[in-house]
Amino acid sequence: MKFYDCATAPSPRRVRMFIAEKGLVIPVVEVDLANREQHSDAFVKLNPHRTVPVLELDDGTTLNTTSGICQYLEACFPQVPLIGADPKERGLISDLDWRIEQEGFLAVGESFRNRSKAFKNNAVTGQHEHSQIPELVDRGRARAEQFMQWLNEHLAQREYIAGDGFSIADITAFITLEFARWIKLEPPTDYENLHRWYSEIAARDSAAL
Amino acid sequence: MKFYDCATAPSPRRVRMFIAEKGLVIPVVEVDLANREQHSDAFVKLNPHRTVPVLELDDGTTLNTTSGICQYLEACFPQVPLIGADPKERGLISDLDWRIEQEGFLAVGESFRNRSKAFKNNAVTGQHEHSQIPELVDRGRARAEQFMQWLNEHLAQREYIAGDGFSIADITAFITLEFARWIKLEPPTDYENLHRWYSEIAARDSAAL
Repeated sequence: MKFYDCATAPSPRRVRMFIAEKGLVIPVVEVDLANREQHSDAFVKLNPHRTVPVLELDDGTTLNTTSGICQYLEACFPQVPLIGADPKERGLISDLDWRIEQEGFLAVGESFRNRSKAFKNNAVTGQHEHSQIPELVDRGRARAEQFMQWLNEHLAQREYIAGDGFSIADITAFITLEFARWIKLEPPTDYENLHRWYSEIAARDSAAL
Repeated sequence: MKFYDCATAPSPRRVRMFIAEKGLVIPVVEVDLANREQHSDAFVKLNPHRTVPVLELDDGTTLNTTSGICQYLEACFPQVPLIGADPKERGLISDLDWRIEQEGFLAVGESFRNRSKAFKNNAVTGQHEHSQIPELVDRGRARAEQFMQWLNEHLAQREYIAGDGFSIADITAFITLEFARWIKLEPPTDYENLHRWYSEIAARDSAAL
């Protein structure tokens, strides 16, 4: 396998953390997004959607979404379950991970991409050009703030997001909070549950990657 | 189990079709979205996010996203696999299903919810009020058109979206095309692969539900 990564981007970082938590070592190919390497002929041939992360399997099959890559690795290496060890856990973790991605991670991304000059004509992830919509800067930020409020309440009676054990939902939420700094958004200091949880996740080896 | 459904809404229809393809019979509770039943005290207690679908398990646990519900049912009833029978299939199907949801289903929803008078202050799914952003009507539609073009090309050499077998990716894409009619968007007549595939899916018993 080969993992196409970019050290500075939030989406591949989710997969990087997932791989580390699984205890896997997968050869990494760094993609230089800052210099638009994702638009190069070689990369477009690998992934026409022009995004990272990409996982290339030994038979040449490519998976090019965080969802597909993590589901594949979970099925191959179930020994350290990150998407649930039984049906109920799988349902609950998938439920939470979807919500965190939609309401947290993608909301931050919406605010960021519709403002940053670097994404003037690429306000939507992928190969198609879309102009920025300035109103989304504030709407994405407001949604991210609502997400943080929900997460703080959700963590009032849970050590980890899905309950007693660390899961992919913790990864997605942790990286959402890190990504939120790109839009200068920090959780309010009185979100005590959220800060307690964040400190615990940040102390894990996988969080430093 | 109980499945909280709404006969007219596209999101619960994805789960309805998934349940039918699995050959399961789960008692249904119809939620009257047109009369705002999702905002009732009883429903908010069940699902504070005020959305359908919801699957209530026999122990009272609730799953309230399509992702969580389908992952749960797949793990409980793997006999008819809809998210892949081995790791590679699981990865590929999850990859495609994520893309179809993001670039197809949610793009149509974005166009629809930012225009319809019924969603004037609820342009984003969920319990929080967000004003409509008129520019998203066109951007969502443009993204849905790009999605249809991609899907037509993708289906050139595949009977079903993930290859030889029917999967959840076919469900999400089929309901996306049905939903697209809400914004008066039909695939161009010369998208022959797409129309061939659509006719096959539409002929399944589960598509009539």
